[in-house]
Amino acid sequence: MKIIVERDYELMSRTVANLLLGEMFRNSRVNLAITAGSTPVKMYQYLVNAVKGRPYFENVHYYNFDEIPIKGTTGFGVTMSALNDLYFMPAEIRSENIHVLDETNYRHQDERIAADGGLDAILLGIGEDGHYCGNLPGTTKFEDGTTCVHRDAVPGMAETLAAEVGGDPDRAPEFYVTMGPKSVMQSKRIILFASGPKKAETIRKALFDPVTNDHPSSILRMHPSLTVVLDEAAAEGIKDEFHVKQSM
Amino acid sequence: MKIIVERDYELMSRTVANLLLGEMFRNSRVNLAITAGSTPVKMYQYLVNAVKGRPYFENVHYYNFDEIPIKGTTGFGVTMSALNDLYFMPAEIRSENIHVLDETNYRHQDERIAADGGLDAILLGIGEDGHYCGNLPGTTKFEDGTTCVHRDAVPGMAETLAAEVGGDPDRAPEFYVTMGPKSVMQSKRIILFASGPKKAETIRKALFDPVTNDHPSSILRMHPSLTVVLDEAAAEGIKDEFHVKQSM
Amino acid sequence: MKIIVERDYELMSRTVANLLLGEMFRNSRVNLAITAGSTPVKMYQYLVNAVKGRPYFENVHYYNFDEIPIKGTTGFGVTMSALNDLYFMPAEIRSENIHVLDETNYRHQDERIAADGGLDAILLGIGEDGHYCGNLPGTTKFEDGTTCVHRDAVPGMAETLAAEVGGDPDRAPEFYVTMGPKSVMQSKRIILFASGPKKAETIRKALFDPVTNDHPSSILRMHPSLTVVLDEAAAEGIKDEFHVKQSM
Amino acid sequence: MKIIVERDYELMSRTVANLLLGEMFRNSRVNLAITAGSTPVKMYQYLVNAVKGRPYFENVHYYNFDEIPIKGTTGFGVTMSALNDLYFMPAEIRSENIHVLDETNYRHQDERIAADGGLDAILLGIGEDGHYCGNLPGTTKFEDGTTCVHRDAVPGMAETLAAEVGGDPDRAPEFYVTMGPKSVMQSKRIILFASGPKKAETIRKALFDPVTNDHPSSILRMHPSLTVVLDEAAAEGIKDEFHVKQSM
Repeated sequence: MKIIVERDYELMSRTVANLLLGEMFRNSRVNLAITAGSTPVKMYQYLVNAVKGRPYFENVHYYNFDEIPIKGTTGFGVTMSALNDLYFMPAEIRSENIHVLDETNYRHQDERIAADGGLDAILLGIGEDGHYCGNLPGTTKFEDGTTCVHRDAVPGMAETLAAEVGGDPDRAPEFYVTMGPKSVMQSKRIILFASGPKKAETIRKALFDPVTNDHPSSILRMHPSLTVVLDEAAAEGIKDEFHVKQSM
Repeated sequence: MKIIVERDYELMSRTVANLLLGEMFRNSRVNLAITAGSTPVKMYQYLVNAVKGRPYFENVHYYNFDEIPIKGTTGFGVTMSALNDLYFMPAEIRSENIHVLDETNYRHQDERIAADGGLDAILLGIGEDGHYCGNLPGTTKFEDGTTCVHRDAVPGMAETLAAEVGGDPDRAPEFYVTMGPKSVMQSKRIILFASGPKKAETIRKALFDPVTNDHPSSILRMHPSLTVVLDEAAAEGIKDEFHVKQSM
Repeated sequence: MKIIVERDYELMSRTVANLLLGEMFRNSRVNLAITAGSTPVKMYQYLVNAVKGRPYFENVHYYNFDEIPIKGTTGFGVTMSALNDLYFMPAEIRSENIHVLDETNYRHQDERIAADGGLDAILLGIGEDGHYCGNLPGTTKFEDGTTCVHRDAVPGMAETLAAEVGGDPDRAPEFYVTMGPKSVMQSKRIILFASGPKKAETIRKALFDPVTNDHPSSILRMHPSLTVVLDEAAAEGIKDEFHVKQSM
Repeated sequence: MKIIVERDYELMSRTVANLLLGEMFRNSRVNLAITAGSTPVKMYQYLVNAVKGRPYFENVHYYNFDEIPIKGTTGFGVTMSALNDLYFMPAEIRSENIHVLDETNYRHQDERIAADGGLDAILLGIGEDGHYCGNLPGTTKFEDGTTCVHRDAVPGMAETLAAEVGGDPDRAPEFYVTMGPKSVMQSKRIILFASGPKKAETIRKALFDPVTNDHPSSILRMHPSLTVVLDEAAAEGIKDEFHVKQSM
């Protein structure tokens, strides 16, 4: 586990972009699973700037790791729509380099990724409840591969899904799909990033408290190649442990 | 996870030896943590035959991953004594290539291995209770690094330790040391092997039942590079799952 | 460069087989280019024994690196026929794992291999004239990719080709195809092996004399991951250099 | 070989910095050999900005690959003085992470690097005469390891050395030291970069003309992991070849 602390959101975003670029600058195919959400907004601005119009990145293939279908529509779900807006469209990524996970194909996601050579890296955000991808407490277990989670899996999920699709309960799906903990851990590298004081407590639990399904991201530290990138506010809860490590 | 099933103990032993040799044939330093016990006896015979008198394997460094000190003695403990007999002495491994873990240095084992470049592979046997290294149910948790386990950690441990040192309770130590689950999972590769019908049930639990501290080896499948080598008897409990996988 | 010297042809053959097995024991796709000829006969016996009937090696893909077409026939050429006899048929390799290079597709060999993820290893024999694959002195230059060589490229080539196809000049082709030096050097690893006193001089030139197109294999030592496996007779010419290296 | 063309010097410099950062963001030790000169000035500005004050880069170790001693002085030579000014001092690199090559230790440079685990990447500029490091035409051969070059090795060298040390012939050394072609090619990755129209012709020769000691950098394309970064002016001479490649 390598922990990187940058001063603020801006520097954290640049460092995460540089970490991804480091993976992308290979001569052969690179498979990346990337995240939507608000934390990566600035990071994608750096990345778009470095990737757009560069044919030498045509070796890079992209995967979404979860999806919330929107009921009554036939287009992309919540995650792919967000990734299109944040990155794929402004960076002008070719469609043949984008490998969509959705409710129609999730049962084959793990084999498909294995056949493609495996993920070289997966970029994960973290929720205050310790979730990453769609692995919220109570929805999946460590041993799960890519799976679907029904809206009655845990209390409040139906409301959460309605909020995700824009607030209209009629558009909320019966279930969403997500790469499970076991699938995520198969990636050759995991990059976890977080920003802001609201994430300080969950980061401490993820990295230094017991490994438990109650805090799903606690499993990530078991990976042999985990890189954590934080701004100082998100690192507030691990200052003591981190200083020990830095002074080793 | 790659599951290899060989017909019998002899072929399983040869395949595990070949797996280790595959790691060893590099041009630069290779770090291996290897296991004592009865399962690897035949495997070490193959390995000694391939390694003895070969200067081109001087790039290979060895680590023991647990140790039971013998009270009232100043020499090696149970594990190192067994490794010496099984492999280091017959293969004529140079002492500077053997990195001993014991009760005096276990607190620095994880940093020492990191400074040496990390483990390239760790070879693990498995107990009927699901243990690997000294990680018996109730003694360590997934989040533990290299640690010590006291003889009152779980019921029966004092008797177990006495048996390990030859039956004399006066020679049984207060505690033993072991790389913990988190330390083991940092290895770039994990090789797990088992032989015989007594291991069929524990292998099934390790690979296909819930990931839980109650069956410590259940965590190993979360590693991105796990190779499991079994003889047919040890694979009896996973026939159904395995056939599904093979026919994918 | 790692130089491995074994006592005799038998041990050299076993070590080369173990080197290849080490590459093959991965969880994901492995691409190997392998050689025909007389030197690997014993090696393939070891390999067939370890590979036949093992579904866990279905991740391994094979490439021939040269081919001499047989005029007036529609079947395999000289190299593929030999590889079929030596290895593919006795080891029962599935046809979808065998990627044939021949006179119809050689122009696309380099792109095809790149698209497949590149070669993980290429196994090369060496001729007394310093050739490997079909790179005989005067036929190709270091900068050549996969190419064709006409039978009037160098004096005596027409006779050589006739001999290769069984002695009948009417069956000798106008040209043969071969991966060129630049293509071979793109492999992630090169394994060069040789046996017997007739190879002692060419091995010395390959490893310790000037790098020159006049001795094509002299380029191989420039590769960052070259492993050389010799029996003692083939290593006779490099005893002095080798002892210096061993005592470093 | 991956060829990256950026619009101008500024973008080329940023991309080279990102390539190096990609190597540096590992959890374990990274060994980089880096270049002095005028081409990397802007690149080091990016790098200093990303590295200064970042304890998470303490895993990165640096090597200079050539040195021109300054006669009559006891301090650093020309290359190390330049690297100190360009990078080590402004980035506040710890002295224990800087591994100096000079006239006193060049005979052991190759073994020292091998013992340190080998170079992960080497960053090379290119001269109009095709040289990289101190490998000027006529001074070294492909098969050379780290070596010394005397001032009478080729005509004009004495004058060149005098100019390098500031113009005073009394300060010009009898010889300089450099990693030779064989040593450079042992790096796991080679990054070659060039800027400006004066480099267009030498880049074309390096990448697409015959591999010959007369143009030393022509050997670099034989490496299995070569990345070339150019601005548009330096890429002018390879437009035709490059467009073919891009459209593949």
